Amino acid sequence: MSDQASPAALRGGIDLGGTKIQAAICTPAGAVVGQSRRQTPTTGGPPDVAEQMIGALGEAADSAGVETDSLAGIGVGSPGDADEETGDVSDARNLPSWDGSFALGSRLSQALGAPVRVGNDVDVATNAEFVFGAGRPYGSLLGVFWGTGVGGGLILDGKRWLGRGAAGEIGHMVVRRGGARCPCGRRGCMEAYAGRMAMEAKARREHEGVRTTDLFELMRKHGHDRLTSSIWERALKHHDPLADELIDGAVKALGAGIASAVNLLDVEAVIIGGGLGVRLGEPYVKRIRERMGKHLFVADNPPDVKVAELGDLGGAIGASLLFADDAGGG
Amino acid sequence: MSDQASPAALRGGIDLGGTKIQAAICTPAGAVVGQSRRQTPTTGGPPDVAEQMIGALGEAADSAGVETDSLAGIGVGSPGDADEETGDVSDARNLPSWDGSFALGSRLSQALGAPVRVGNDVDVATNAEFVFGAGRPYGSLLGVFWGTGVGGGLILDGKRWLGRGAAGEIGHMVVRRGGARCPCGRRGCMEAYAGRMAMEAKARREHEGVRTTDLFELMRKHGHDRLTSSIWERALKHHDPLADELIDGAVKALGAGIASAVNLLDVEAVIIGGGLGVRLGEPYVKRIRERMGKHLFVADNPPDVKVAELGDLGGAIGASLLFADDAGGG
Repeated sequence: MSDQASPAALRGGIDLGGTKIQAAICTPAGAVVGQSRRQTPTTGGPPDVAEQMIGALGEAADSAGVETDSLAGIGVGSPGDADEETGDVSDARNLPSWDGSFALGSRLSQALGAPVRVGNDVDVATNAEFVFGAGRPYGSLLGVFWGTGVGGGLILDGKRWLGRGAAGEIGHMVVRRGGARCPCGRRGCMEAYAGRMAMEAKARREHEGVRTTDLFELMRKHGHDRLTSSIWERALKHHDPLADELIDGAVKALGAGIASAVNLLDVEAVIIGGGLGVRLGEPYVKRIRERMGKHLFVADNPPDVKVAELGDLGGAIGASLLFADDAGGG
Repeated sequence: MSDQASPAALRGGIDLGGTKIQAAICTPAGAVVGQSRRQTPTTGGPPDVAEQMIGALGEAADSAGVETDSLAGIGVGSPGDADEETGDVSDARNLPSWDGSFALGSRLSQALGAPVRVGNDVDVATNAEFVFGAGRPYGSLLGVFWGTGVGGGLILDGKRWLGRGAAGEIGHMVVRRGGARCPCGRRGCMEAYAGRMAMEAKARREHEGVRTTDLFELMRKHGHDRLTSSIWERALKHHDPLADELIDGAVKALGAGIASAVNLLDVEAVIIGGGLGVRLGEPYVKRIRERMGKHLFVADNPPDVKVAELGDLGGAIGASLLFADDAGGG
């Protein structure tokens, strides 16, 4: 473990994603002194997911040379509706059989012997960028996590803004009323154009029609069963016309949606993360910035727009911040 | 003047609009003990506008039985870019020859003998609804002022949220990327569908084409040279098909744009004011609420959506709140 921190100063963080569980042991300064990653179960239910989270956090603690019950606390960044007051998680629809509510915080705390707090995955990842990452210089920012869906997190006046608990759903801001069907079931959401799930569905429809594309051949060749961020990146490098077209649509939707959010909130900065955001990086963030310019009401004073810095570990680091000294419990 | 307040506890408020200047003398509890209204000059420049503001505030003070230099302060709600630090107003393009910057606060303070603070018109009107009006029960809210344009103001965690000074431009959130041209020059903004100026332009184009409508006949009959909120109201009562169609488009755009803002911020309440909002009232706010329902991500927990309560005086009362005990200067 780190020379700089006693075990009691260390925090655990778990980023619970639809495909992987990332656990980390962090110092108060955000250094990762131990980590582990496991696959998220695709069958079973919430107790099986919790079991893998417990295992991953235990491994991360082992690699840091500490016992889990010596940690100051363990934070969890969760999809679905994460109740910071109770630690319960409900409606995590990208996790197996998690349509109802499950007392995730209690279960983890019981097994790991440390206090557990549960927050929204995107909110905690935004906070990590604010405290330790690309958002450090700013007092207000919008985090945009461009991946399977498009999630958003807000820091206003130096603090996470959660609204009544469900703030940050930037992916479901309407960019084209009456437009494309979104995975959420509504029409014209930003995510209907920019989310990887929506883009893959569109690509499959086009491919089954008249369009030729290398996207699905690349997917099979690299042993995937879905269009990962790396597959999109490869296809763009080959100038695959369908990939170009869909990503161009995503960039336009992100530009309009993010600019709308900036027109409303006038934040100092926008931090773009997520699988696609981090993978495609600055060249595409530059294009998003340009598209935003068409819609910004105060066009001569745009916010800074930057790529997230913490990469895959941002979620777990942000989760550990639920036990930062000034974080509070709810 | 009021028995309840000494002159030193009274504040002045001036709402500077494109067509009228509304001045009020207010008690700390928001009671209006004197008021006056003048027409906003349509020619000349900023000094001429300031002259009418000074006259209006003086008349309001007269009617309250106080001298202007005995007031605790005078707040101004201004269009354009109002700098709360300096009291300067720039780019107030709906006022005559006000493309540059003018030291409005200094000019008024010098003439009226009291400290002056200048804020954004929509922000202060939102704050008035928060402190004294329909927003009283809430800790966070979005004010939507539906009139010539569509302005927005935010109260988050009990305080006005101004961003870097330009927050609240809800009218320029994109509801239809690539859609109708907005008076701001961009495309697809909410205001391009819902603003009275945009709707009037569309009505004129339709009327010059094949469409029949009573809108312009009603306008002339009632001695107006533009489609005021009362003209729209009359046309809707007559079931004028073009008025119905345009207001229906406005309601859809407002529903999508406001729902987008709620998806991002998850505020407790939305307060709808402005000339059209107040004039058309609850029956149309109900329709906006229904349209929002199609786009709200957390559909089973919508915010309360209410009509503004303070009517025409809200702007001036809100301006006086720039001198509330906890308001601060900038």
